[in-house]
Amino acid sequence: MSLPAEFGLIARYFRPLAGPGALDLADDAAILDLPPGRSLVLAADAIVEGVHFLADDPPDTVSRKLLRTNLSDLAAMGAEPLGYLLTTAFPRGTAEDVVAGFAAGLAEDQALFGLQVLGGDTVAIPGPGCYSLTILGTLPRGQALRRSGALPCDDLWVSGTVGDGALGLAVGQNRWPGDAAGYLLRRYRLPEPRLRLGQALLGLAHAAMDVSDGLVQDLGHLCRASQVAAVIEAARVPLSAPARAAVEGDPGWLPRLLTGGDDYELLFAAPAGRRDDVLAAGRAADTPVTRIGRFAAGDAAVQVLDAGGDRLPLPTGGWSHF
Amino acid sequence: MSLPAEFGLIARYFRPLAGPGALDLADDAAILDLPPGRSLVLAADAIVEGVHFLADDPPDTVSRKLLRTNLSDLAAMGAEPLGYLLTTAFPRGTAEDVVAGFAAGLAEDQALFGLQVLGGDTVAIPGPGCYSLTILGTLPRGQALRRSGALPCDDLWVSGTVGDGALGLAVGQNRWPGDAAGYLLRRYRLPEPRLRLGQALLGLAHAAMDVSDGLVQDLGHLCRASQVAAVIEAARVPLSAPARAAVEGDPGWLPRLLTGGDDYELLFAAPAGRRDDVLAAGRAADTPVTRIGRFAAGDAAVQVLDAGGDRLPLPTGGWSHF
Repeated sequence: MSLPAEFGLIARYFRPLAGPGALDLADDAAILDLPPGRSLVLAADAIVEGVHFLADDPPDTVSRKLLRTNLSDLAAMGAEPLGYLLTTAFPRGTAEDVVAGFAAGLAEDQALFGLQVLGGDTVAIPGPGCYSLTILGTLPRGQALRRSGALPCDDLWVSGTVGDGALGLAVGQNRWPGDAAGYLLRRYRLPEPRLRLGQALLGLAHAAMDVSDGLVQDLGHLCRASQVAAVIEAARVPLSAPARAAVEGDPGWLPRLLTGGDDYELLFAAPAGRRDDVLAAGRAADTPVTRIGRFAAGDAAVQVLDAGGDRLPLPTGGWSHF
Repeated sequence: MSLPAEFGLIARYFRPLAGPGALDLADDAAILDLPPGRSLVLAADAIVEGVHFLADDPPDTVSRKLLRTNLSDLAAMGAEPLGYLLTTAFPRGTAEDVVAGFAAGLAEDQALFGLQVLGGDTVAIPGPGCYSLTILGTLPRGQALRRSGALPCDDLWVSGTVGDGALGLAVGQNRWPGDAAGYLLRRYRLPEPRLRLGQALLGLAHAAMDVSDGLVQDLGHLCRASQVAAVIEAARVPLSAPARAAVEGDPGWLPRLLTGGDDYELLFAAPAGRRDDVLAAGRAADTPVTRIGRFAAGDAAVQVLDAGGDRLPLPTGGWSHF
């Protein structure tokens, strides 16, 4: 009896990615044991063609973005990657080289970030591609970075640069010319999960999260969880050279960069008395960190001040699906 | 700043389903500790509108089928449910009462099967609904039921009845009139994960799996994993009363019932010397179990014999997505 085609796809492209515990993707489930003293950390994200990525994005960057956005959630908790489960709904009639490219991207990032696939499902959809990933990580028991620990008077920090994701999306949609080196489009397609920084912040940051839906909106979430307010000094927000050039050409870009999605940088609160330790953690993780403001007592409001200390007008909210 | 609509949907419909460790679905990830001495068991399945369920299936049965098919994977390993992560890509413009119905179905089955949601993602798709679930369970370390342990001379058993899923799909597609009580359509929409039976078979069955893609095809997987052959005696295969009526009306149904999908019964191998123990396990789990054949030395071939001992001709293979 011949086997349906998805078994061949799984055997050729996904089984080689399987790690210990995955049972070769040939059983009903995977089996794992946790190292003693460590907690399991779990998150899941889905991405949809035409919504979270562009239909002409290369398949290897689609799968890598999916994996990296999930790894970014681990980074935000200070966790180490352990493995992942992946369900892929490829559009009906997808060419096999698309599946091959998708798997090749995963292989590359698995090696880079030190994790392997544990299980999943491969189906076809009469519509746009829809991919879902559940990430597993571990961290020392009781030490997770949470959104809820920020205190009034804590410093507000962010990793890397802000706004490249929004600019990169504009490049992908031909709404912005981009930079000669392709940096912006790459930042949109391949965010950098700040795993080493997250782990270095355990016991140091009071609260953390990753910025996926826009700096201002996500800071609002952290403020609500911590029951504090926050002030961002816009002039301190780190911008890449291409982003700085965009703002210099059109100052209207600044509020859009502060509210645009797809950055996947870490936003965190740390005591003002430990600025040197935070900078050292950034150096140890080989990740730039920048102090962009402060937390304050208050009702979870987020203010953004311009270089003159005046309130910067912002577009409403972040990305919404519904 | 107003929040995007998906945060309202999550707060209204999914947060009430969240269990310990989910951090109210308000952080970047969930955090869990495992009971000592137990292993984690993990599986993930996706379902797509028009492929795995019918567009006019009630939303509460769609979510329950998704949860139950995943629970069936835990049952096949002998695991107990621990929790799940869920990503939902609702068709753009989905009415809120559809989301409410989807969540109500989950609430009902969470109570029935003793688990809660740990995390996930809610997005919109410009296409058919696409839902993915990662299930977590636990079992005593080293005791999982695997597909690979069947021995030649083991008995071949199946739980419940076979073929109701295929007939129920035919009813849903108006290809079959169905039964007055609606049993067949219900069996298609709401499979019964055999969790208690799976746990009762730990230390007793040599191998097990759940039947999702058709009895014959799935038995082929188990045979390949165990490097044995198998014989099904068709006359022994348990059929529900409506399925028996279908076969009596049209004997052509029998091979279709043996190869149709969506049964989610357990298929397992147990030593011939422990038949009474298997029957006792079935009674303890309040789940019918039927001996339908035997394993044999050989090359992983599956034979189906009719009442006269002749080979029953079968349609090719099971369900294929590609």
